[in-house]
Amino acid sequence: MKKHSHTLAILVMNNPGVMARIAGLYSRRGYNISSLAVGETEDPRISRITLVVEAEDENELEQITKQLYKLIDVIKLSDITKDDAVERELALIKVHCNSTNRSEILQIVDIFRAKIVDVSQEGVIIEATGDSDKIQAILDLLRPFGIREIARTGKVALVRSAAGR
Amino acid sequence: MKKHSHTLAILVMNNPGVMARIAGLYSRRGYNISSLAVGETEDPRISRITLVVEAEDENELEQITKQLYKLIDVIKLSDITKDDAVERELALIKVHCNSTNRSEILQIVDIFRAKIVDVSQEGVIIEATGDSDKIQAILDLLRPFGIREIARTGKVALVRSAAGR
Repeated sequence: MKKHSHTLAILVMNNPGVMARIAGLYSRRGYNISSLAVGETEDPRISRITLVVEAEDENELEQITKQLYKLIDVIKLSDITKDDAVERELALIKVHCNSTNRSEILQIVDIFRAKIVDVSQEGVIIEATGDSDKIQAILDLLRPFGIREIARTGKVALVRSAAGR
Repeated sequence: MKKHSHTLAILVMNNPGVMARIAGLYSRRGYNISSLAVGETEDPRISRITLVVEAEDENELEQITKQLYKLIDVIKLSDITKDDAVERELALIKVHCNSTNRSEILQIVDIFRAKIVDVSQEGVIIEATGDSDKIQAILDLLRPFGIREIARTGKVALVRSAAGR
């Protein structure tokens, strides 16, 4: 059966071991985490985890969220998959670059509103942000030049404020 | 004793449960993960983890890296703390905003080369990238306006290419 991606925003108490418990729960049950991002909130005791999980149907997803709620460190869990949300990830991409193809690479960087953050004789490091599709698209365009290294974050997301809410 | 931050770049086989094993190792031994970012590499079988851990001294750090190497899923581990590296994290920040303070917020966004990615009557969502200090600085400046929500990734890092290497 086809699996669907679900984006969960989870507020957790910042206790030692909370990451292990969440990650462990998923691996024991065979759930598949396709993206994971963890960061501090304004309250240093609380971290926000953005988790993208694959689930076959609503039933499996309900099981996942129920299990997460049972972890005492989880303060709040929201499934924001269907919400209108801003979704972003960040990638640092090291690409081969020489005098003949430099201007072509700069064009791609401009089109994607990315930034060159390091230059050497061997290549450049590009900082790109966007949703997963955008990051995939810039990687596809840069691949022919030779990608030497990638460091990529998981996805973070915030629900937009509707004017009427 | 004062703890120091160390940035580790780890390539792991993308097997189910690898995250749990890494996170579990740290929590069992009481090591403190202060930042964690996971992302795919060009090879879908391999993920790259950027981990910031606190260690008291070289000896404790050596213990941590030894333990990580014992995990069969770890392909390569580099301590890039002392390397000249580009370090970036991404934050989405939802801030209260009205007609009287909007221009002041826009100024802060411009100074930090951040982006407004959503606007409503209640506020704005700002996308900011930079090293931890820069993200901390923009949060400090936005705090007086009222920060409603933050979604923040862990830190990713790539070592710069030196011209002579």
